[in-house]
Amino acid sequence: MNQALEKLIVHQSSVAVLGLGYVGLPLLMEVSKKYKVVGFDTNDGLIAQLKDRLIESENILVTSELEVLRSCTVYIICVPTDVLADKSPDLSNLVEASGSVAEVLKYDDIIIYESTVYPGCTEEVCIPILEKSGKKLNQDFTVCYAPERIVPGDNKLSLNSISRIVAASNDKGSEFIYQFYKSFITADIHVTPNIKVAEAAKMVENTQRDLNISLMNELAIIFDKLNIDTESVLEAASTKWNFHPYQPGLVGGHCISVDPFYLLHKSRSVGHEPKVIAAGRAINDYLPLYIVEKIEALFLTKNKSLKGSHILVYGLTFKENIDDMRNSKVVDLIAHLKNKEAHVEVVDPIVQIRNDASGKIPMIDISKVKGTFDLVVIAVKHNIFLSLGHEYFYNLLDEHKILFDLKRIIPIEHRGKFEYWAL
Amino acid sequence: MNQALEKLIVHQSSVAVLGLGYVGLPLLMEVSKKYKVVGFDTNDGLIAQLKDRLIESENILVTSELEVLRSCTVYIICVPTDVLADKSPDLSNLVEASGSVAEVLKYDDIIIYESTVYPGCTEEVCIPILEKSGKKLNQDFTVCYAPERIVPGDNKLSLNSISRIVAASNDKGSEFIYQFYKSFITADIHVTPNIKVAEAAKMVENTQRDLNISLMNELAIIFDKLNIDTESVLEAASTKWNFHPYQPGLVGGHCISVDPFYLLHKSRSVGHEPKVIAAGRAINDYLPLYIVEKIEALFLTKNKSLKGSHILVYGLTFKENIDDMRNSKVVDLIAHLKNKEAHVEVVDPIVQIRNDASGKIPMIDISKVKGTFDLVVIAVKHNIFLSLGHEYFYNLLDEHKILFDLKRIIPIEHRGKFEYWAL
Repeated sequence: MNQALEKLIVHQSSVAVLGLGYVGLPLLMEVSKKYKVVGFDTNDGLIAQLKDRLIESENILVTSELEVLRSCTVYIICVPTDVLADKSPDLSNLVEASGSVAEVLKYDDIIIYESTVYPGCTEEVCIPILEKSGKKLNQDFTVCYAPERIVPGDNKLSLNSISRIVAASNDKGSEFIYQFYKSFITADIHVTPNIKVAEAAKMVENTQRDLNISLMNELAIIFDKLNIDTESVLEAASTKWNFHPYQPGLVGGHCISVDPFYLLHKSRSVGHEPKVIAAGRAINDYLPLYIVEKIEALFLTKNKSLKGSHILVYGLTFKENIDDMRNSKVVDLIAHLKNKEAHVEVVDPIVQIRNDASGKIPMIDISKVKGTFDLVVIAVKHNIFLSLGHEYFYNLLDEHKILFDLKRIIPIEHRGKFEYWAL
Repeated sequence: MNQALEKLIVHQSSVAVLGLGYVGLPLLMEVSKKYKVVGFDTNDGLIAQLKDRLIESENILVTSELEVLRSCTVYIICVPTDVLADKSPDLSNLVEASGSVAEVLKYDDIIIYESTVYPGCTEEVCIPILEKSGKKLNQDFTVCYAPERIVPGDNKLSLNSISRIVAASNDKGSEFIYQFYKSFITADIHVTPNIKVAEAAKMVENTQRDLNISLMNELAIIFDKLNIDTESVLEAASTKWNFHPYQPGLVGGHCISVDPFYLLHKSRSVGHEPKVIAAGRAINDYLPLYIVEKIEALFLTKNKSLKGSHILVYGLTFKENIDDMRNSKVVDLIAHLKNKEAHVEVVDPIVQIRNDASGKIPMIDISKVKGTFDLVVIAVKHNIFLSLGHEYFYNLLDEHKILFDLKRIIPIEHRGKFEYWAL
């Protein structure tokens, strides 16, 4: 048996999971079914919450105290990697977590990174921090990379049914990382020749998705200008055997809308400007403004002005049926509307119930919506919105009945009752 | 029964197919199994060839005389739509064919366009030409659009097994076009609400493919600069359930490399610059020059110069196992090499045997290849090249053994014997 795995199984040493967010927490639970785990997060409030919420198990310990990690021999770093305001990589969490591990690092320990990073980041940024411990890579410790492939809000794809890519800094590490993930994941585990390949592969997956959505957004804008119904075009194109049925839409969140910036950053650092990827990112980021420009143009034809208008927006998250607002482009859309001095209120029962992240955006409880609005924007396809029905929205609108149904949730036969616009 | 279909079936009137190339000829054969057909082409040489080659059938007549088309009530236009040197649409064949039909047009005739065009082209360009006959659309004649979806060189996807999109200028036309194609195609026939939607859908299908390949090319260039093996990255990314496994490569031919230019043209005509699509096209067109730059850089490290070097290129077509050289990027690659004063010779048994389109590029018979070359470029994955084996290529090269294997046909275990480069 692989020596590192033997420590976990025979000697009952613990696996540390650093960062207990949407990646680390499900991993902690899954790993705890096989091994002793210590969940670590610097957020004391979260640790307190988790201590209340977590199912009692002698295998799980959660803590914000670094010293507790000294009982561990494997460390899995699952901290978020977002972008800064200038869209360059924000590696602060990764740097901090690597520094924490360096403090408690012992000989023969294994550090696994699950955080998404640009190719070369683990070797150029993380390993030098770990080596500040005085220990040397491969000689004293091993680094692995196993990019997370969590799909937020998808109940069908659970962590243990998702195929994974893994890599390591040496052959024994490759052996360990394969056997370790294989021990709690039933799907395929693919070992790449080195860490850079695994880092690059994760970038490629999400960049491909971002670009394909950006094409749909570009097409939607072109067809809008040509008075062609995008939905009908995509329905027709989808009858071809090799067509990929994407839809136009707002691209937010912590993966698709972030990873291409990481790849752009790395490529630019070696003097190459990737024009296709950059163009895709640009149009996806431009979309909220395009929608506001459409609203303004339509308002003008009705002698309406955005200034002082009352607008109701349904949905604030970056994806349907989750409470995650990270990089939500609905927030950008609302900011653009507010710049035009519109009064904007938001209905999002999922955000309201589960967290208080609403910040400066005025939220209305879905049961308390009343009044007459100049515009309703349906921005997110939460299931709860699907059941409201077209009459509900019709009755909220003034005589112009302007409805921006960005996710096309109103059935086609009722759209004629509205001044209807969709992507 | 639909009146127009009744004419074909009961009154034995003929279907005309205009343009007998890779789209028109298979269609002629398929339609002839059900209806009388007249194949028309302005190329007398082609007509003479076809008269010799075609299987005798009382249902088929081929001609270059327009007058013969007067016996027809349905006209299917299958002429090529390429781009001019400035990449704007070359509609000359379409204009000419529409003018021909206008000369013989009778009341209640139906004109079907299969040629790929930008959205709006049929209504803005073709129909006005047909109306020069003095007859009026919908009142006197009907126009349909049914974009071809032929896959050159694919034996599995025959014309009658490929699902199709159809559209017409009026409801009776929609009924006819659905029933007519359904009568000889077993796959699904999808009727779009209008002609523009069907034109747009065809653009979208090929533009999506072009863009996805352009992303792979952009990634290959980035990873090349970062010393990361693109093949390993794409292999790893392909283990994700929703990844689309494209490969980097030269994009030529009459569809993928042309259609995005049609969409760009139309979009620009209404004042909108599609940056994603344009960036994708640009990188795919840049690739031959990038490869030549790579060759030059590698030559430099060996104290070699492209000037006066002897280079052997395997494959000249835009796709494997066909003799079609239209918009082949291998031709561009060779032109760039010749600009650098390299001596380039080409081996392509498929082009040599089947046509004489080789023009100014010196071709060598595959059985007569001899000598020692500074570089071999394997540019096309013809089956005949796969069986040559790595030793064959090894023995053709000088001591530097520089092999550019653009389609990665050399097995991975033999690549180390060469100074090997692949996309």
